[in-house]
Amino acid sequence: MARVFNFSAGPAMLPEEVLRQAQEELMDWHGSGVCVAEMSHRGKEFVSIAEQTEADLRALLAIPDGYRVFFLQGGASSQFAMVPMNLLRGNNKAAYLNTGSWSRKAIAEAKRFCTVEIAASTEDTRFTCAPTQDELALSAEVAYLHYTPNETIEGVEFPFIPETGDTPLAADMSSTLLSRPIKVSRYGVIYAGAQKNIGPAGLTVVIVREDLIGRPIVGTPAMFDYQSHADTGSMYNTPPTYAWYLAGLVFQWLRRRGGLESMAAINARKAEALYVAIDASGFYTNPVEFSSRSRMNVPFTLADPGLDQRFLTEAAAAGLVTLKGHRSVGGMRASIYNAMPEEGVLALIAFMQEFERKYG
Amino acid sequence: MARVFNFSAGPAMLPEEVLRQAQEELMDWHGSGVCVAEMSHRGKEFVSIAEQTEADLRALLAIPDGYRVFFLQGGASSQFAMVPMNLLRGNNKAAYLNTGSWSRKAIAEAKRFCTVEIAASTEDTRFTCAPTQDELALSAEVAYLHYTPNETIEGVEFPFIPETGDTPLAADMSSTLLSRPIKVSRYGVIYAGAQKNIGPAGLTVVIVREDLIGRPIVGTPAMFDYQSHADTGSMYNTPPTYAWYLAGLVFQWLRRRGGLESMAAINARKAEALYVAIDASGFYTNPVEFSSRSRMNVPFTLADPGLDQRFLTEAAAAGLVTLKGHRSVGGMRASIYNAMPEEGVLALIAFMQEFERKYG
Repeated sequence: MARVFNFSAGPAMLPEEVLRQAQEELMDWHGSGVCVAEMSHRGKEFVSIAEQTEADLRALLAIPDGYRVFFLQGGASSQFAMVPMNLLRGNNKAAYLNTGSWSRKAIAEAKRFCTVEIAASTEDTRFTCAPTQDELALSAEVAYLHYTPNETIEGVEFPFIPETGDTPLAADMSSTLLSRPIKVSRYGVIYAGAQKNIGPAGLTVVIVREDLIGRPIVGTPAMFDYQSHADTGSMYNTPPTYAWYLAGLVFQWLRRRGGLESMAAINARKAEALYVAIDASGFYTNPVEFSSRSRMNVPFTLADPGLDQRFLTEAAAAGLVTLKGHRSVGGMRASIYNAMPEEGVLALIAFMQEFERKYG
Repeated sequence: MARVFNFSAGPAMLPEEVLRQAQEELMDWHGSGVCVAEMSHRGKEFVSIAEQTEADLRALLAIPDGYRVFFLQGGASSQFAMVPMNLLRGNNKAAYLNTGSWSRKAIAEAKRFCTVEIAASTEDTRFTCAPTQDELALSAEVAYLHYTPNETIEGVEFPFIPETGDTPLAADMSSTLLSRPIKVSRYGVIYAGAQKNIGPAGLTVVIVREDLIGRPIVGTPAMFDYQSHADTGSMYNTPPTYAWYLAGLVFQWLRRRGGLESMAAINARKAEALYVAIDASGFYTNPVEFSSRSRMNVPFTLADPGLDQRFLTEAAAAGLVTLKGHRSVGGMRASIYNAMPEEGVLALIAFMQEFERKYG
């Protein structure tokens, strides 16, 4: 089959250019005679890949001095524990914003280690909007505030960065990192599973302000102590080398495309076109408040849920795959990360309009 | 450059047949129109890959009923914590065999969670042999006994499975799993980082007897609780899908080669040829006691360490790479896992003999 437009929420589509390069280099990276997956992580070839990858990420995100960048394993789910384990620092309280399915998972995990204060919750809206800054109730004694700038399942994205004063801000950016420029200096910890905008599953990028490293709670495994990774350049143990390399190819592709300003413009166009098409129809609905709509994950429902399966089947036949919504919310979801070309979104819109014409 | 013989201890050489298959399937797996790295881990395509991979591993190792198999992230270094966190079960003591660099790391991590009793140590021999069964001092109150059947750095392999009665036996098989048949029923937990005999770094295979799952100590992160992975078929969070797929290709390759009996015979021949060449020379030395010599990792020193760099340079020019010994022991190390063909070992031996003739 020809390559398809894959709207999976993650693991997600990778840039075709990146996959072609990986394919070309697979048996023999740059004349080394080995695949990157076969390289010793301490050899000069892989170290050069690792260093270039970090340098490219730092350039893309304009990461200031005073921040460490880690390439780890374990996904955001491991960070749900690592954030409290490393950031509590003698405190026993942390604040969380409860804005959707992933926030809830972060909160549930944090409760294993501390008392969680909910500084704001949008649960009463069924997670269809972000809270406003005015709604945040942040008490002085918390060790940090954690939030989820983009809720992958509900399709809700914060239009602002929470103001927390001196309280460190921790953010699960799994589904938004690299989709637009961010002001890293506003954060204490930023983390992201790679499988949306970075690379293959099995790699986690973590950006930590240096002063937050080095005081883990008692009982923290070495692998969950940021200090272990800071001391070793993310090589406390064997890192996920091939995933790291693929992320590097993605970062180079982003730089060739003009960096994050350029990606932000493209992503805004893609999302706007899709939301306009949904709102203009009498058949598709997106429940999210206008100002909080995600540019990355666009959930929508059909007027008749009895047509869902037909929609998915006909879409797949048209080369538009993995559009099924998350089982917890139903309907459809189009994830349109960096690697989804504008043609893919336009093809989806054309398909949706034709489907509505036939069955609506 | 042509493909080389890569003696890296890990990440290590992968079978060329497997790499070629991965290269062919990279842009479009079986007509799906996507790379395996782009598949949703919950979609039917990836689930079929995951299930086949587990079935093949179970067949290769003849894993009996009553054992769960997990495909996780985090490497053996995470298991160093997960074993005590899951196996202590109300106890506060565990026993460890101290037989080399990796045992020591496992012991250091376990001490974060319990009192460690050293049931035997070969440190006074500079880790040049395995202990005997008679030397094991296993007290009745320990929750489990942990050991390292093959010490990757020192090149020491146990010629027997420790007898522990009712005490569960936990084994770090990172560098020996799949190199020969094993009797899984003798173990409580078996784990292995993938990057030696299984696949790329970033995947960890864990085999756990079911009755040992479900009683983690207080403060265990969900990701470190075996129950999380048992409940979800290793999909508590997004697994390292591409690494899992590559492991599956390796397992199929092993089955095509006749399984582990066949691999054991080949590996024995490879190791014997190399040890015979070392012992027959007056120039190369392996310090390990005969009966404990590893079939996977063969460290050796040159009579004149001043020739080490020349050896490495000339070997690389001859297509024999990553022979440098671990920095903690120096000299050379040839890791000859399943994917290293017999021709690779014979080429190394021929090179060593020629090098000795020229400079010895």
